[in-house]
Parts: sequence; structure tokens; C-alpha cells
Amino acid sequence: MSWNKYLDDNQNRFVSELSDFISIPSVSASDEHFKDVEKAGEWVVARIKQAGLKNARMMPTETHPVVYADWLHAGDDKPTILVYGHFDVQPADPLDLWDSPPFEPIVKDGKIYGRGASDDKGNMLAPILAAEALLSSTGQLPVNLKFFFEGQEEIGSPTLAPFIKENAKLLNADMIFSSDGGQWGENQPSLVTGLKGLVGCEVTVSGAKGDQHSGMHGGGIANPIHALSHIIASMKGIDGKITVDGFYDDVVDLTVEDKKAIAKIPFDDENYAKELGVTETFGEVGYTTPERLWARPTYELNGIWGGYQGKGTKTVLPAKAHAKITCRLVANQKPDKIYELLRVHIENNVPPGVSVEVKQLAGSANPFLVPHGHNSSQIAGRVLHDLYGKEPFNIRVGGSIPVMSMLLEELGVHATMFAFGLEDEQIHAPNEFFRLESFKKGQVGYCKLMEEFGKGF
Amino acid sequence: MSWNKYLDDNQNRFVSELSDFISIPSVSASDEHFKDVEKAGEWVVARIKQAGLKNARMMPTETHPVVYADWLHAGDDKPTILVYGHFDVQPADPLDLWDSPPFEPIVKDGKIYGRGASDDKGNMLAPILAAEALLSSTGQLPVNLKFFFEGQEEIGSPTLAPFIKENAKLLNADMIFSSDGGQWGENQPSLVTGLKGLVGCEVTVSGAKGDQHSGMHGGGIANPIHALSHIIASMKGIDGKITVDGFYDDVVDLTVEDKKAIAKIPFDDENYAKELGVTETFGEVGYTTPERLWARPTYELNGIWGGYQGKGTKTVLPAKAHAKITCRLVANQKPDKIYELLRVHIENNVPPGVSVEVKQLAGSANPFLVPHGHNSSQIAGRVLHDLYGKEPFNIRVGGSIPVMSMLLEELGVHATMFAFGLEDEQIHAPNEFFRLESFKKGQVGYCKLMEEFGKGF
Repeated sequence: MSWNKYLDDNQNRFVSELSDFISIPSVSASDEHFKDVEKAGEWVVARIKQAGLKNARMMPTETHPVVYADWLHAGDDKPTILVYGHFDVQPADPLDLWDSPPFEPIVKDGKIYGRGASDDKGNMLAPILAAEALLSSTGQLPVNLKFFFEGQEEIGSPTLAPFIKENAKLLNADMIFSSDGGQWGENQPSLVTGLKGLVGCEVTVSGAKGDQHSGMHGGGIANPIHALSHIIASMKGIDGKITVDGFYDDVVDLTVEDKKAIAKIPFDDENYAKELGVTETFGEVGYTTPERLWARPTYELNGIWGGYQGKGTKTVLPAKAHAKITCRLVANQKPDKIYELLRVHIENNVPPGVSVEVKQLAGSANPFLVPHGHNSSQIAGRVLHDLYGKEPFNIRVGGSIPVMSMLLEELGVHATMFAFGLEDEQIHAPNEFFRLESFKKGQVGYCKLMEEFGKGF
Repeated sequence: MSWNKYLDDNQNRFVSELSDFISIPSVSASDEHFKDVEKAGEWVVARIKQAGLKNARMMPTETHPVVYADWLHAGDDKPTILVYGHFDVQPADPLDLWDSPPFEPIVKDGKIYGRGASDDKGNMLAPILAAEALLSSTGQLPVNLKFFFEGQEEIGSPTLAPFIKENAKLLNADMIFSSDGGQWGENQPSLVTGLKGLVGCEVTVSGAKGDQHSGMHGGGIANPIHALSHIIASMKGIDGKITVDGFYDDVVDLTVEDKKAIAKIPFDDENYAKELGVTETFGEVGYTTPERLWARPTYELNGIWGGYQGKGTKTVLPAKAHAKITCRLVANQKPDKIYELLRVHIENNVPPGVSVEVKQLAGSANPFLVPHGHNSSQIAGRVLHDLYGKEPFNIRVGGSIPVMSMLLEELGVHATMFAFGLEDEQIHAPNEFFRLESFKKGQVGYCKLMEEFGKGF
């Protein structure tokens, strides 16, 4: 039996296994789900063993565990490839915006709905199933294979770097592929050549020692929400320019060639705005929307809170106000330096009558740029061409995958994204889903990728 | 037995009854406590009957009910006085900042702790107990007495005005006293001659149709929290001046005489700041702190929320951001006109890429100023002088009691505040308490007040 037929014959079972996988609420950001992340890791270990890789195990880090597995019987003349992914997921709130419960997956119209369906459970299960198909149909793999799956990607992989450093030998590989990422469209493949970095901070503005009556003390003391609003407004203008001193200093400007390459990829501003339900696109003045999305740094408020959020009126003058801010970085911005710039700016712009505390958020990441002519990317490109019948676009992505720069730093390998999520799949949002067609494409893609590398390169 | 001895003999029982009263979580702002507000009303009716006023009943309004009671047997030559108060309370959240549960009152160091202890349950129980003491000791009251207690003060008395209009005859009185309010200090009485008005709005800023991934869409679309911060910053400067067009137009400026009267009352900025735990006072440039607190309009953020408020990082680009804003008004600002100014300002200052909805909050109130030489105030001042051995300060207050202007409008009577709360009692905040000494003073005060009015005036 060919691996192709094996995949066809077992697709229903695979979907039902993916459903089991999604049912585990492995939210890495939440203390109450700490054990569920571990449970998801155990599920992955068992599933890898079932696929035929006997050497699979969970390994601890300082926070959530990782899963490591290998099959190294292809011979020394064959390359070793490592496939990365993550089995933790984003928080599911706001729960009331989900059409069906986030951890009770349902299949509808060729899509599976649930938190983590696309990011990254469906995508990371695909290479495991590919290995099973190859081992079951041929008794062996064309390459030496390693799996490295983590449980802390959605909180920025805070304790992964030391693990990779300590286990560099175990993880060592000729090339690395990431199952976390996506394609341009249902019928258009893409190769990602750049990812943004990430750095974030939480700002707490404090006024009076407790919540006060706004009639009794309004006009007497400062309002922390008012002060916080002024701080935020001072950091980014309504023209989209970030006004934090020195923020753009280390940005590698887009060359004319870069701009041309980006302009070649079809992007319809009006359609993009329409799909997101906004009246117009918005961002840094002087750049096109794709330039801003892929190659310009950003400053975003992820959350804000303070005072009364309930129904009706509560005439309180709150004691505190809070905001969570993250910036996406591009080459050659450094997360720690940008954090310092944010901190200094905020501390220099504290309005009268309040005090401000700035704290760096865990999970920063360096920006990541694949060099031109990179070998694994070229081969991945060939497989994608074969799979879709179309030349892939070379694109950059606004997201951050901290592990990509960690793997580069510790193992010296530029990872290549080889994944099948699509942009409309509501990742990090309510009603996340994954196309079953993409799930299958992932399995076929990884089989072909391993075959291609097995031929020698 | 004198009413004085009766009060002394029964004080323990009265404190335990106050504790029962506080135990009813009559939070008028909360749907889940709707029945509890009614329950508190029933408790009040029963307690008034127990005091000896047989004609006591609950009456419905379009929202929470009111309690009405009377004793009209003093004779036609005696005045009729109406005592106002409220049996609803503020929400108790944030619950984790309370040292003991808000609705399980405890007595400690001569204070009773619990939501509503000072505002207004302790204060409104005092005149009922005063009536009981007089009726029990003398068999009658020196005046004709009416009680009018409401259950919607903390949500701004939204449906009280039509009730008062319809029942103007029932509520008619020669003078009105409010048990909602306070005194200057433990040893210093005060008479309130002005209250601020109130108007509020809720602002909702909308961006994309759902929460988005900040890496995928940051730089592409506007961030509602960022936009909301700019809107807020545009409404009030860091010098404390409200920058909404026309906001100050109708404000009656303080005369030199008014400023002198305010300056006579001791107020220590440094001490005030220290007590509230702030580094400095803050407010509209050009006015002293007491002038701002008592006689200048204010603009306060009562709450703000949007995006992720949990632990750690969630790199979301939120769909919506919200803020609750209330303004305290002074004569002759009109709530509806000020709301219009706020709305127009916000709609004229919408940053690109978002849409904004402004909604007026229920519970606006006109500002209230007692005319010079007002009769009930003079007599109340005499009683306070007698009670404290000191001349009361004539002050204004930053709070709003909508019913004061409603009673003026419908019954033509300027109500006089006769109440015993103190400024440090954490009303509208965690760990609210009421001094048992103030509770007793309120009972004695109302006995003396009725006696004084019974002498003719």
C-alpha cells in the first residue's frame, strides 16, 4: 500500500484523533490549565508512539514540558530533519462569542472548529500522521526524523531557550521545519522568509490608595485612567507613527527591491478592510498595508482595564488603571532595547498626581529573516509547487515565533515554515477552525518533503 | 422615661438591627440583587411600624420601589417634616479588597463595617429610631412626620422623578431633611449649601468585527484601545482643564465672597493628599483644591476595559474598547446639554479606522444650591451647634443627590441635609464603615430637630 492510500484510508480516524487532541484545554497562559498542557503533551507522546516512533518522551522545562521523539534509522548518508510545533493553545475567552464550546470540537462544512484547531494542533498533528503513513506503507522513513513540540508557544516560550541550549546535541539537525504557520490561500502556496520579533510590557498607573467616590474626590486627585490614556496617546499618534524616542532607530529600511517584491503579491486594501469589518485600513503613514503588516514594526494595546466595568453607573474614581502593550519588531530591533525605550518613554511622560510601574512581559522574541537562497526553503518551495501546482509567494509575516530565532541561535539552523493554516481561521480569536483539506495537505506535504530529502540534495 | 434614656437603653439592640439591615445586599445597580432591594424595602417598612408609625408601606416605581410612612397626629398648628434617605447600596466589588465580607457586617473599635453602613443605611435608620424614642417616651411626636426612602439612589434615581410628580400631594411637607450626607468631622458640624449635578456617558470604540491576532493584523487596522485613549486625552488635559468645547459656558463663577467663605474652612492640601495616598493633589489649574472639590465641575473616568485582562501575554488586537465617563456639574450647568457637548466632542474626535458609539448613562442630576437665609437650614444649624458645641461650617459638596433637585422641582422645597457620615468612611469603596457614635448622634440629632420644630418657628 502506498503512503497516499494509507492517508486516504485513515482520514476519518485522523480527524477524530484531532478532535480528541483539541478537546484537551491546554491553555498555557492560565494557571488553572497547567495540568492540561501536560495532558496534551502526554497525548502527543502516545500518538507519536502509535505512529511507529518508539523513542518518544516528555521532558520538563522550568514551566510547561516539551515532547521530543526521533527515528534515526535511515542511515548516515541521509539528512536529519527536525519538525517543530506546539501543543499549547491561546486562552479561549471571550467565551460568549464562540458559536460552539471551544474545547468541544465539531466538524461542519469540511472544517473542524475549536481552540487550537489551526494554531497549532491540526498543523502539528500532520507530520506525525505523515511519519505513520510512511512507516506503515514502507516500513521506514526516507530521512532521519526528529520531533520537537513545545507547550509554551502561546506565552512566548519563556523557558524554552535554556532547554534548547542544554539539549542542543539531542535537537541537532541538518534542517528544521516548523508546523506552526500557514499558506497564502486555499490555492496559493507561500514561503515565509521573515517573522517579526516581539516585546511587551504591562503598565500600571496608581492614584489614591483605594477606589474613591468621584463626587467626594473628583477635582481633588488625579484619575489613573485619564493619566494612562495620556501616556498611551503619547506613544503612538493617530497617524500611526510610533512616537517613542528611538523606536525606529535600528529598523532595516525596506529596499526598493523589497518594496517591489511585496508589491508583486496581490493585496486588496478594500477587500482586506471589508473582511475584517473595518471602514478603512490603518497604520504607519508612508507605507502600504502589506509593508506595514509584514515589514514594519508595530505598537499594539492588547488590553486595558481599570475601575467599574459592570452595568449602569458606578461613580467611582478608581485607584488603578492597567494596560498591556506589545510591539512587533523587525530586523534589526532588539527586544530588550525596545523595552528599555518604552519604559523610559513612559517614565518620562507620567502625568501629575499618579505613579506608574512598568513591567516587561515574558516572551520576547528576536525578529527572524531567512537569507536569500536558503537550501531547505528552496526544497520546501519545490514541494509546495508540486502540491499546489503553483509557484509559492515569498512573503514575510507579522507574527512572532520565538523558537525560530532560538533554534537559529543555539543550533545554527534557519528553520523553514512548512504549515497549512489560512488567514481566515480565527486563530487567537473566537470560533477558530481548521480546514480538513489543509489537514490532509499537511500530511501529504510532509510525506513528499521527507521523500524529497531522502533523494539527496 | 426621656427619649434620651430610651436611646441609651436600646443602643445595643439598634446596632444589631443596623447589622441586620446591612446584611441585605440591596445593590440597586445589579440585576441579580433586584429582589434584595425589595427585601431591604420590606425590612424598612417593618422597622418603621415597629417604631410606632402604623401607616408605612412600600410603593412601586418603574424600577426599584420606595417606602413611604407618616405620623400626622401633631395637629394642624405643627409643621410637617419629611425625612428622605435610601436603602439601596453601591456594588461591593472589588470583593478581594474587603477585609471582611461586605454583607456580613462586623463591629470593631466602635465602628460597624459593611456595604451601606454609612451610605445610607446607618444614616437613614437614625431618624426612624429617633421617632421610636419620642413615641415610646412621650406617646407622640412634636411635629407631623413623613418618611420617604428610595431604593435607586446609587443608580441615580432614574425613575424617581415621575413617582414624586404623581405623589406630590402625599409627599408634601413644610420642610425636607435628607439623612444622606455627612458632617465635617467627628467634632465639627457642617451645613451643606450646595451639591453637584451629574451626567454620564458610555463610549464604545469598535474596530475589526472580532478580536484579531496582533501579529497578523497589527499595522493593518486600527486598535480600538489606542483610539479610545486618544479620545479621552482630547477631552481633558494633563493640566486638569476639561477641553470639551463649551463645557464651562454655563458655570456660575465663584465670586470673591464665595472664595473667601471657602478659604475660611480649614483645608490642608498636603494632609488631604497623604490621607488618600497620593503624592500630590490634582485638578483644574487656577483653583484651590476645595474650590475644585466643591464648586467646579469635573470630568472623571469611572471605568475602562477592552481586550485581554488576564495573566501574562495575549497578543490580541481587540475588537472593542469601552469607557464610562461621568461629569459632576455645578450651577447652572444642565445635564442634557453637557451630555450633548460630550457626544459632539467625541464624534468630532474619532481617530481613523474605528467607529464610536456614545450612550447617555441613566441617572443625571441637576446641581443644587441652597439660597442664603434658608429657614430649615438655620434651625438645623442651631441643632448641630447644640449637638457639637460648635458653629457648623457652611460647605458645598462634590457629590450628587438627584432627589434633592427633584424634590425642589416637584414640591418647591429646598431640602436640608441632616446626616452624620464622615469623609473617611470608605463609601462607594471597599471596607465601608459607620461610626457607632455617629449613629447615636443621628438619633439624638433627629430627636432634637423634631423638638425644635415642635416649638414653632
